[in-house]
Amino acid sequence: MKSLTKHLVLDTEDRVQFINITSKIQELVKESKIKEGFCLVNAMHITASVFINDEESGLKQDFKDFLEKLAPQDDEYRHNDTGEDNGYAHIWRTIMGREVTVAITDNKLDFGPWEQIFYGEFDGRRKKRIMVKIIGEE
Amino acid sequence: MKSLTKHLVLDTEDRVQFINITSKIQELVKESKIKEGFCLVNAMHITASVFINDEESGLKQDFKDFLEKLAPQDDEYRHNDTGEDNGYAHIWRTIMGREVTVAITDNKLDFGPWEQIFYGEFDGRRKKRIMVKIIGEE
Amino acid sequence: MKSLTKHLVLDTEDRVQFINITSKIQELVKESKIKEGFCLVNAMHITASVFINDEESGLKQDFKDFLEKLAPQDDEYRHNDTGEDNGYAHIWRTIMGREVTVAITDNKLDFGPWEQIFYGEFDGRRKKRIMVKIIGEE
Repeated sequence: MKSLTKHLVLDTEDRVQFINITSKIQELVKESKIKEGFCLVNAMHITASVFINDEESGLKQDFKDFLEKLAPQDDEYRHNDTGEDNGYAHIWRTIMGREVTVAITDNKLDFGPWEQIFYGEFDGRRKKRIMVKIIGEE
Repeated sequence: MKSLTKHLVLDTEDRVQFINITSKIQELVKESKIKEGFCLVNAMHITASVFINDEESGLKQDFKDFLEKLAPQDDEYRHNDTGEDNGYAHIWRTIMGREVTVAITDNKLDFGPWEQIFYGEFDGRRKKRIMVKIIGEE
Repeated sequence: MKSLTKHLVLDTEDRVQFINITSKIQELVKESKIKEGFCLVNAMHITASVFINDEESGLKQDFKDFLEKLAPQDDEYRHNDTGEDNGYAHIWRTIMGREVTVAITDNKLDFGPWEQIFYGEFDGRRKKRIMVKIIGEE
């Protein structure tokens, strides 16, 4: 069994932001030389997500609107009694998901036609880290 | 390390539908001859889910009612400005989840008593694909 | 490839409860002697979750309030026509998630600074089981 481990660093400019990281992950799969295996991609922060969906700007806005309706940013959260103001972001990340596991087949992400990997930031404006770990066989 | 890769094809008859795929996945585990490992099952479409819950018809209706309440099918979605009418389905799949990873022990799905694997279709009435990848050791 | 399989047993005292299991999982990683690999942790019950978030009491209350608002415990659920009274719990577990896959690097959970693993019980007051499976290389 072989493995590749990488902590990607992203500079997030906005508080709430979706960043397409598919090509970065595909490069790491290539670098790993692993032909058959699994690729785990997860947020290393608990107010951020990694998820798979479509690259379409309207959809990104739909997700933001949906999350804001479900758990408004300026609602009252017990978590904010600690001095934080990101209570909503812990909930948003839970809805969108922490991680994805993607099949690697013949040294490529084994994807359907529209699958794209996104990093979802919900409390940004600073450097954030994404875990990528690939295990399998050459 | 050994692996087995399969793209299952399902014919979805309804727009919204839950299909129990547990026995299909168990057959593939047997076929793989892998005794100890992981089995990844994921939707290859971004308006569909793979998730684990109970085989009970009332519960399936509860899930549909819950999703419809949260993100109604005929609400307005920016995504639908592209000519699509499945904005809700991208959100439903996000709530239900894209994938499951299941432990394989002694060449079987290592499940609790009620765990069953479902494919959740939210924009169906055509052929859809499910990714199954098993890695581990004989 | 090596593997370690463990079914943890927890005694849940409350109907709804979050239990931090991070140190238990870290011990199993150490016991496995696996240096590079993946650790899968999942609920073996379909009214329970395993998820990763912050160890902070206010946040745990926020999650309970959020779930209660989304799918109230005493709403009507078709599932409850079977004689059950835990319809809400199947939905809560879906929102919070069944499982996490965590990267193992150098025989440790490869975590960001605040990541903690929780078992979320939504229909407790009896013994429950959690699946832990670790695969990888020494």
